Amino acid sequence: MTSRNSSDDRSSTLRHLVSIDDLTNEEILEIFAIADRISKDPSEFVSICPGQILASLFYEPSTRTRLSFESSMQRLGGGVISAADMRASSASKGESLADTVRVVSAYADVLVLRHPREGSANVAKRYARVPVVNAGDGSHEHPTQTLCDLYSLKVEKGRIEGLDVVLTGDLKYSRTIHSFVYALARFGANLVCAPQPGFEMPDYVIHRLKEQYRVEPHRVEMQDLSSIAPRMDAMYFTPERPHQLSLFTDIREVNVKKFDAVYVTRPQRERYSEAEKITNANAYFRVDRLALSGAKFRETVVLHPLPRVDELGYDLDEDPRSIYFQQAARGVPVRMAVIGMLLGKFNFPAAAVEPRARISARVRTTIECNNQNCITESERRYLNPEFVLASREPLCLRCVFCDAERVVEFVGCSSTRHYHAGASSEVNRIKAENLVAFATEEEAIAAGFTAAAIRGAGQTPA
Amino acid sequence: MTSRNSSDDRSSTLRHLVSIDDLTNEEILEIFAIADRISKDPSEFVSICPGQILASLFYEPSTRTRLSFESSMQRLGGGVISAADMRASSASKGESLADTVRVVSAYADVLVLRHPREGSANVAKRYARVPVVNAGDGSHEHPTQTLCDLYSLKVEKGRIEGLDVVLTGDLKYSRTIHSFVYALARFGANLVCAPQPGFEMPDYVIHRLKEQYRVEPHRVEMQDLSSIAPRMDAMYFTPERPHQLSLFTDIREVNVKKFDAVYVTRPQRERYSEAEKITNANAYFRVDRLALSGAKFRETVVLHPLPRVDELGYDLDEDPRSIYFQQAARGVPVRMAVIGMLLGKFNFPAAAVEPRARISARVRTTIECNNQNCITESERRYLNPEFVLASREPLCLRCVFCDAERVVEFVGCSSTRHYHAGASSEVNRIKAENLVAFATEEEAIAAGFTAAAIRGAGQTPA
Amino acid sequence: MTSRNSSDDRSSTLRHLVSIDDLTNEEILEIFAIADRISKDPSEFVSICPGQILASLFYEPSTRTRLSFESSMQRLGGGVISAADMRASSASKGESLADTVRVVSAYADVLVLRHPREGSANVAKRYARVPVVNAGDGSHEHPTQTLCDLYSLKVEKGRIEGLDVVLTGDLKYSRTIHSFVYALARFGANLVCAPQPGFEMPDYVIHRLKEQYRVEPHRVEMQDLSSIAPRMDAMYFTPERPHQLSLFTDIREVNVKKFDAVYVTRPQRERYSEAEKITNANAYFRVDRLALSGAKFRETVVLHPLPRVDELGYDLDEDPRSIYFQQAARGVPVRMAVIGMLLGKFNFPAAAVEPRARISARVRTTIECNNQNCITESERRYLNPEFVLASREPLCLRCVFCDAERVVEFVGCSSTRHYHAGASSEVNRIKAENLVAFATEEEAIAAGFTAAAIRGAGQTPA
Repeated sequence: MTSRNSSDDRSSTLRHLVSIDDLTNEEILEIFAIADRISKDPSEFVSICPGQILASLFYEPSTRTRLSFESSMQRLGGGVISAADMRASSASKGESLADTVRVVSAYADVLVLRHPREGSANVAKRYARVPVVNAGDGSHEHPTQTLCDLYSLKVEKGRIEGLDVVLTGDLKYSRTIHSFVYALARFGANLVCAPQPGFEMPDYVIHRLKEQYRVEPHRVEMQDLSSIAPRMDAMYFTPERPHQLSLFTDIREVNVKKFDAVYVTRPQRERYSEAEKITNANAYFRVDRLALSGAKFRETVVLHPLPRVDELGYDLDEDPRSIYFQQAARGVPVRMAVIGMLLGKFNFPAAAVEPRARISARVRTTIECNNQNCITESERRYLNPEFVLASREPLCLRCVFCDAERVVEFVGCSSTRHYHAGASSEVNRIKAENLVAFATEEEAIAAGFTAAAIRGAGQTPA
Repeated sequence: MTSRNSSDDRSSTLRHLVSIDDLTNEEILEIFAIADRISKDPSEFVSICPGQILASLFYEPSTRTRLSFESSMQRLGGGVISAADMRASSASKGESLADTVRVVSAYADVLVLRHPREGSANVAKRYARVPVVNAGDGSHEHPTQTLCDLYSLKVEKGRIEGLDVVLTGDLKYSRTIHSFVYALARFGANLVCAPQPGFEMPDYVIHRLKEQYRVEPHRVEMQDLSSIAPRMDAMYFTPERPHQLSLFTDIREVNVKKFDAVYVTRPQRERYSEAEKITNANAYFRVDRLALSGAKFRETVVLHPLPRVDELGYDLDEDPRSIYFQQAARGVPVRMAVIGMLLGKFNFPAAAVEPRARISARVRTTIECNNQNCITESERRYLNPEFVLASREPLCLRCVFCDAERVVEFVGCSSTRHYHAGASSEVNRIKAENLVAFATEEEAIAAGFTAAAIRGAGQTPA
Repeated sequence: MTSRNSSDDRSSTLRHLVSIDDLTNEEILEIFAIADRISKDPSEFVSICPGQILASLFYEPSTRTRLSFESSMQRLGGGVISAADMRASSASKGESLADTVRVVSAYADVLVLRHPREGSANVAKRYARVPVVNAGDGSHEHPTQTLCDLYSLKVEKGRIEGLDVVLTGDLKYSRTIHSFVYALARFGANLVCAPQPGFEMPDYVIHRLKEQYRVEPHRVEMQDLSSIAPRMDAMYFTPERPHQLSLFTDIREVNVKKFDAVYVTRPQRERYSEAEKITNANAYFRVDRLALSGAKFRETVVLHPLPRVDELGYDLDEDPRSIYFQQAARGVPVRMAVIGMLLGKFNFPAAAVEPRARISARVRTTIECNNQNCITESERRYLNPEFVLASREPLCLRCVFCDAERVVEFVGCSSTRHYHAGASSEVNRIKAENLVAFATEEEAIAAGFTAAAIRGAGQTPA
């Protein structure tokens, strides 16, 4: 089944930036170092990409992001070809994303993609002949935004490790928040989640924070935050390291002395359910001077990915703590560094570790991704679902395109040809390369598997 | 109240081009001198802006203007980032003009703005980190168009002073006409207004011609113009200078020997009232060879800002008097000169006088601009109305954003704490810095002012 | 009457690329030679157009074509100004194509035009001050697509002459097919037409193949093609040359040993009549691995202008015979060569013959083009119909804009002042410069012509 997607390997020597996880910590720090150099003396970089072209393919409008990339490429001396509204274009003649990417990437040296469907950038990187940069794929990832956020924090605070960062507002749908928390976790920051009630951080994000970054959540009461999040249940996430565990062993003891940063997000109303639209109509958090008047906010920098609606007071614009405009402005040096790195103008640091997604083995399966907004939904003509193993108990697969996870009901072992309930402890004993996942028992039987006998009858999965 | 707009000062060292009044006559002539050099040898200029970026922000489509700016920047060796339809973009997420300008100007070195609301470019220049060029803000200003018009006239006729320039068609709504007449007046040309009946030059324009440029209108009969304006009441405007007053002391003596130029404008139907649409449906002026067959038109050059509809005959296209295509073509060298000057590539002439708008003191007031299309209407969240004194009798304020003037009903003196009727002669005695303008008597009272006693009772405003 | 179009001559020293016929075979081969050099070492070409500008004017969306041109210009070191959706622009203010072209071409050094009406590029080249490249005008021509197609064939097969090329699918409406067959004919390839039933090659195309390129069609049965075109009547077209005529003297003997190429086209559904939509709803040809499994297809390269819908199997993507993505990629070097040539960066080969269209004399006439989609339909305000003589029996005129042909009912001789039926043999005796064509007898009479007397009565047309 995976043979149809065999172009996977063709471009394996190219580097792409689809997820912040495509970069090691060393690489991220190197990008920041280059961005520092660019900010100091941009003239040094104005002709490092002569005759090279960046292609912008935007399947939904995002002027800010598009202009930032296009400015970056031109500040490096390169050219830009730009499709600001791909919906009005070839797509209307029924063209697949794969075909568009194959053709347009032949006109360019780097491809920037914005697409409403999750996982689209992972599809693009399979078919592109050049590096792909994900400029936002649905609610999935927007790694250069995350790099700007992180870089701003580092520039303003001098470090990331150990910072206490408050995240407010819509923690459920905000793509930028999700990518940001993973990045903060990787660099050892502590997270204080102050969500809009009803828009808490999703379980799969918390799960990934625990599994992948060993970050532990604690439920806390935090009077200090009442001014900006009056009705919240704040959560404090801290990396699981000895010196910190000794400080925060009990929920009651969690006492942040000062907040280093507040990250504010707008309500992602375009993604709300009808019920959520009503809940959240009049009551969205607002961070303004008053909310930040407490002593613990004296040196807090205020970040926001912009555009804002009403969640961020205009009275903060002239406040020295507000750094959101600088944060946006830093999009150019950071993206210049990313583009230059992908085009081989700067060296990647030697310690580069293979990104997570590349080293996970595919799990054979007949199931489909159940994220309705996954790119596999709209590109079925040529794209098969693919999954890797997310966890064993219960057996859970992760879509290689959109990263959505799905618990599996029935699992077969290709060695014994037996199948088991996904939640069965037997599943733990099947080797990853022998796993076959089924959506229903019927499918397992249809595939020639038989129900496993009662454990102890001598049949052991291998 | 003005504190909210305090970013006013931040960018005060930057030069912007929002109005033709932002340039002194010397600067305009310097721009023309540079445009001459560019026309002669463009290769000299092809790499003076390496790695620099022009951002086009167009909130309404204007392909011609946009392409002209974008060509100009690239002919200087710079790059371009372009948002041809901002309405489809971030604005749809509710972003303010100020935020967009702040962010996008951080990606660029010069910002070109087209916006349907009057005064928008004046808002943009407050928040931009780079020079702003107004590429048309509603019916307000479009200074580079005016520069092209004036430059064409100068190139074709060798001078501007003393030329007799006929302005035909829609003199009411045409932004280009209004800017053009101020510019002609500054350089000492005489104006012959031949409006489409019902679409005469507005009073505030005539008022400004008189007040600011000392240009006197005379009502004249002019048989010579009957071919192009059969039903008009022509007006002749001439700078109030001794040698000319001696020529034209009486209306009957006005007798133009030859017309140096005719400036034709299309009907601005998109701005018409319903009644005006009916009036003007079938009867718009048409300037063609026949209309220009009289002896006085033998050396008349024909200008038109383009696009034309039917008001300009195609039979003029091959006529040597038609210069409208050259006028359009000159948009590139003129805009190259403007961009280069704003980016510091060329020196501004030493004699630069502070522009008018900068030196007027703000008048404290609670009133709002009553131009329904003023940018303060749509950007209330963060933008306060601001006014300067336009005239004393009657007391009249000018909106600092859109330049619309508004007569004031009640005026207070912050020194005596008394208020007066706006038309009262007492108002003349209040110092400008003590003036407080009120829309209603109630507002004056609410602000703690009391009605002035009868004059002579000893209370003198200071 | 032609005086209104007198700007025809102004730009006669400029070279344009409106039709593939604007280039001689030598020039086409030179373009391919330059494209080879570009593909080998693009860095040699990155700064040959500093400060020069390509303008893209697209009156219908075509992202792929636009991006390809814009990439090409920038890879040559030039700049780009781009109007991706001209329909939303000045055209909405009623501007003529001529005016737009005159103005925008003054901002640029080369103009690329895509327009839905046939003949629009021929209008553009009259008014442009710079070279015009036709990027598709309705169903008329798209010469750079043809160059890419031909170039791909030459690169893959090493030659064009004598190749057996199968053309499948919609041969009726596909602009790319029509241009391609003329080009193949010029270089001596053999054509095998395997049309979708109901979508056969139009008669006027076959007529032109015979008249202009001396290509003879033969009706053949070809079992070998049954897999890709089960219900077709295949046609085989071969240049009329001695060595080939000796091979294929009889229809029954036509036996192609192997197919060198298959050119697949998508159904041009946007151009279908209602009846055609029904006919072709479920039954369009599909070329996939199965269809190409016969021995004669072993070395067949598969071309497609893209985008595809369902007529081209995704299973071919990884097949070495598929070259459609390379064909698209070659759009950049080919267009770089074309732009460079038109801008005088490369020499045209000395043997350049005047293009066909330039050397045909105009025929005086009162008739109009009866192609409803001809550009003369929409630009009547300033554009007169113009025709050249297409053939004598029956007397047939060709529109100089859209190339549509029209049989003429009545013909006058300006020397004798007599008129004749268009099908009359008398017409053969009238000199081309004396021909006057009329749509009706009334028009001939109104123009002062009288019916010719019976032949033999002494009146001989001269």
